[in-house]
Amino acid sequence: MSGLERDNNSKRFIAVDGGGTKTACVIGDGCGHILAACSGESSNIKSRPWDEVKLELSTLIERVMELSHSDSSQLDGIFLGMAGADRPEDREQFVSFLEERFAGKVPITIHNDAVTALSAGTWGEAGIVLISGTGSIAYGYLPETDTYVRAGGWGYLLGDEGSGFDIGKKALTAVMKQHDGRGAQTELTELILSHWSLRDPNQIITYVYGQPNVRTAMAELAKLVVTAAKSGDSMALTIMEEAIEELAELALTVNRRLADIQPGTETKQLPLVLSGGVFSDDWFMNLLGQQTGIRTSGLRLSRLRIPPVAGCYILALKQAGITITELVKKRIGAWETGRKV
Amino acid sequence: MSGLERDNNSKRFIAVDGGGTKTACVIGDGCGHILAACSGESSNIKSRPWDEVKLELSTLIERVMELSHSDSSQLDGIFLGMAGADRPEDREQFVSFLEERFAGKVPITIHNDAVTALSAGTWGEAGIVLISGTGSIAYGYLPETDTYVRAGGWGYLLGDEGSGFDIGKKALTAVMKQHDGRGAQTELTELILSHWSLRDPNQIITYVYGQPNVRTAMAELAKLVVTAAKSGDSMALTIMEEAIEELAELALTVNRRLADIQPGTETKQLPLVLSGGVFSDDWFMNLLGQQTGIRTSGLRLSRLRIPPVAGCYILALKQAGITITELVKKRIGAWETGRKV
Repeated sequence: MSGLERDNNSKRFIAVDGGGTKTACVIGDGCGHILAACSGESSNIKSRPWDEVKLELSTLIERVMELSHSDSSQLDGIFLGMAGADRPEDREQFVSFLEERFAGKVPITIHNDAVTALSAGTWGEAGIVLISGTGSIAYGYLPETDTYVRAGGWGYLLGDEGSGFDIGKKALTAVMKQHDGRGAQTELTELILSHWSLRDPNQIITYVYGQPNVRTAMAELAKLVVTAAKSGDSMALTIMEEAIEELAELALTVNRRLADIQPGTETKQLPLVLSGGVFSDDWFMNLLGQQTGIRTSGLRLSRLRIPPVAGCYILALKQAGITITELVKKRIGAWETGRKV
Repeated sequence: MSGLERDNNSKRFIAVDGGGTKTACVIGDGCGHILAACSGESSNIKSRPWDEVKLELSTLIERVMELSHSDSSQLDGIFLGMAGADRPEDREQFVSFLEERFAGKVPITIHNDAVTALSAGTWGEAGIVLISGTGSIAYGYLPETDTYVRAGGWGYLLGDEGSGFDIGKKALTAVMKQHDGRGAQTELTELILSHWSLRDPNQIITYVYGQPNVRTAMAELAKLVVTAAKSGDSMALTIMEEAIEELAELALTVNRRLADIQPGTETKQLPLVLSGGVFSDDWFMNLLGQQTGIRTSGLRLSRLRIPPVAGCYILALKQAGITITELVKKRIGAWETGRKV
């Protein structure tokens, strides 16, 4: 073990990936060893009261420190990727709270949670992440200029084009149009009615508007649309092709803006990391790869290979000036599978 | 005064138009004289507790009876057009409540509130109403078969195509796309920011998601889209043309289905009554009239000439077997302007 390794060995970094449904937290040393992990409920400040979010974060941080027998004095950085923390005021709130908690002795960094998925796909290097889960967003990063660029992600009333919710909404609209005698016949009616155990499209109204989490319930329909599209249903195919176009536009907009920011850089060969439930289907991922703009852009499509919270840990290390060597990558990669490197 | 007139003169009919924002109630005799009117808050059972809706209705009915010095024994019918009362179970609830209130001695009829707008435009005769307000729906009626036919109106998550909300949502999406660097330039950004007194599209998110009634707030943007479209903004024009296509499809679907129900009837020359805030603009109404399907359908476009609650009163009269003569129409038409006929 080199002197630098020994030094980094005793340092501690905490990473938090705060999504809409759960919050993941890990602690690791300065050499890429993740020492402990735990998770809790949502820490999205748009959907939970601030006091609950604070409690959730405190509990998770204390738990990983305890599990790893770490001391506050060892902490060299906390990196948070938080859903719903888009505005500077929102981020300031998190930073103040944690700075107070650690008496201002630990560097705190906070970003949108898309950034953690991105860094999990690129080991913190340049690239673009395209997320299609319940919502959708594209995020790009160029380390040379430390610039993040974003497109989409404006929520279900103003954006989220190509997301699971968007796909599900179009499917339901198609079902109601068929029911009215407008619009084409589609297998989606049968698939959705049977998925929700309903007899009749009229029942969809009461069912949908009565859901405690209507966006999630509608986003889940995306997988039925994929099924129908694969079996050749032309309405389902149209919906999926529209989603592909919207998602491609998100990624290509970010790519274009990264190129504008640093004209010298080669942004044509960047990795395009795909994340979120809608991309879990290979057929859909391939469809995106074949989209004209994406195909000619030279972007290299991939899925996440490590969990977003591990990407967040990488950013914590980089923030502290630690190089992400092949050994560090190997150690982080091994964490998920539980192997020791 | 004929014997029939004298007889009808002492009869009383109550009409209720229960919308999403207010409830209108009138009482009239059997000859077309509206004797008293009052109004209260929403009686939409989807947005207010049932106990409040019951109280609202009781209060309004008692008030018009009092104002017109009418006695329960004179009541010959109550006709309600209620927003949100789409399912048979919902309607049953209203009927039971009022039957109990009047000891089963008064015939109670209940329909969707689109029916009241329709009858206000056609004096209760055959026709189609197309509504584009916050939501959208088309409703058609053939008295020969006593059949009502409906298309659309499935709410903001599954339908309401071409509504104010739909138009407003597309406008906001266009603004956010321009902000991202996707999508075209549009005047809508300036117009919407200035309408809401915001400086920057980033502020739209917090503003919109923080609205107590986000659907109404978004639907109000439709008038800005009309303004921008008139001044030649191509994004706004596209949005309005899409709305026209969707609204035309709603009306033409209803027209086609009415023709299917009664193939012998001439459904080609039916009146198409336009109602709701979006149609208050002449330019937009004319655009609909020029839409290919509408133009070739022979449907005769018009706006409401009497308030929906008066249409509801007409239905109450018809329900009791009273013919809507020219004199009756004249009397009802005069009510709004306060003239005595």
